[in-house]
Amino acid sequence: MLYKLYYWPGIQGRGEYVRLALEQAGARYVDLALVPEQQGGGAAAVGQLLGDRQVAHPPFAVPCLAAGRQLIGQTANILLFLGGRHGLAPANEGGRLWTHQLQLTISDFILEIHDTHHPLGGALYYQQQKAAAKRRSREFLRHRLPKFLDYFERVLARNGARGPWLVGSRLTYVDLSLAQVIAGLRYAFPKASARALRSRPRLRALQQAAFGRPRIRRYLASGRRVAFNNDDIFRRYPELDSAG
Amino acid sequence: MLYKLYYWPGIQGRGEYVRLALEQAGARYVDLALVPEQQGGGAAAVGQLLGDRQVAHPPFAVPCLAAGRQLIGQTANILLFLGGRHGLAPANEGGRLWTHQLQLTISDFILEIHDTHHPLGGALYYQQQKAAAKRRSREFLRHRLPKFLDYFERVLARNGARGPWLVGSRLTYVDLSLAQVIAGLRYAFPKASARALRSRPRLRALQQAAFGRPRIRRYLASGRRVAFNNDDIFRRYPELDSAG
Repeated sequence: MLYKLYYWPGIQGRGEYVRLALEQAGARYVDLALVPEQQGGGAAAVGQLLGDRQVAHPPFAVPCLAAGRQLIGQTANILLFLGGRHGLAPANEGGRLWTHQLQLTISDFILEIHDTHHPLGGALYYQQQKAAAKRRSREFLRHRLPKFLDYFERVLARNGARGPWLVGSRLTYVDLSLAQVIAGLRYAFPKASARALRSRPRLRALQQAAFGRPRIRRYLASGRRVAFNNDDIFRRYPELDSAG
Repeated sequence: MLYKLYYWPGIQGRGEYVRLALEQAGARYVDLALVPEQQGGGAAAVGQLLGDRQVAHPPFAVPCLAAGRQLIGQTANILLFLGGRHGLAPANEGGRLWTHQLQLTISDFILEIHDTHHPLGGALYYQQQKAAAKRRSREFLRHRLPKFLDYFERVLARNGARGPWLVGSRLTYVDLSLAQVIAGLRYAFPKASARALRSRPRLRALQQAAFGRPRIRRYLASGRRVAFNNDDIFRRYPELDSAG
């Protein structure tokens, strides 16, 4: 099975969670963001997909994964699908739902991180909502960041199995997603996240273990991974960061 | 199977999407929000669940559904589980993922609706963020509301099967959820939603058909359903509404 991943070029965005799972699975896939427009890739491919009147199951947004004739949208839904196919989630129903539940909580976390720089809406520039972004970021760093981090640290502590993972004793797609969030937080809020991670050793260990897996290390060093940048979900605006 | 639903009393909130599915399924369940605290229900039951150190799979938030020894969190995840068990979603994998994809898009929609009155964070009162709420609501009504409504109207148009539903020819849990969102929008933004729904006949028909199902009608008239109110996700602040 050759997958096709539809996502915007130039950013990691939500596509990155899918990429990390595909890389860890060793799956064959075409990342259309890396294909030139003249060869059917790039932003034009996304625009064409979103405007296609022939698609039976139209997506609201990307990422989307084409798997044969199936077209799957919504990041967590794509990971649910890939997790089952590639052994990146438990095989039993209870474990599968628990893994997915954690991924949905990560989705909520990511959206709150995004909204620190765009609290008033995505159609306005950051400069048009900078004052509101400062207030929202202060609230986020004070209340929400510790709440989410404490939660995942607690999930790690409560996992009775050996190893650094969130679910059982084997790596699942949520470990990759949470590692990516931690990397993003370190980029966006270097001061606040250094301080927050000091007292959460399990999160640090998880991040290191997930990004230390051979296939993930190869991907990170491949040149295919887009660097963090300020058009993305995680943005470094020093005025929003704080050592607390 | 007797389910137990954990959710905050006094609001519909995200619990309502689970309730509508349970009602349509004719499932036996205890809604702990309606049980007095002295009898183990109410807000105390939620607090106890969220603080319980014995729970193997701790939830980040409610709603949570207890199904025997399984505890399932995240609204869309609960619906994924119930849909499979009670025939409220297609039985095949492709249909199941498509239904779930739509539910996740509804989750995104609900969060954006919530954030119209709380753009700066849930720890601040509405009165502390009223100016920002006005700007965010204007953006929402101008860009996001039409985008989401157009999307679901398009999904309805593209469903080749007979009937008013989003997926195939039978009602699924996403029909109930979208009907609830439309009811909520009518409460929160009476002017803007009347205007927006005028040109989306399929959404109006879906809402009427879903809330016209006998079991749902009985539930709506039962006195068990909490009324819309301004502590909830959908809030009526006239200063945020606009006929456009």
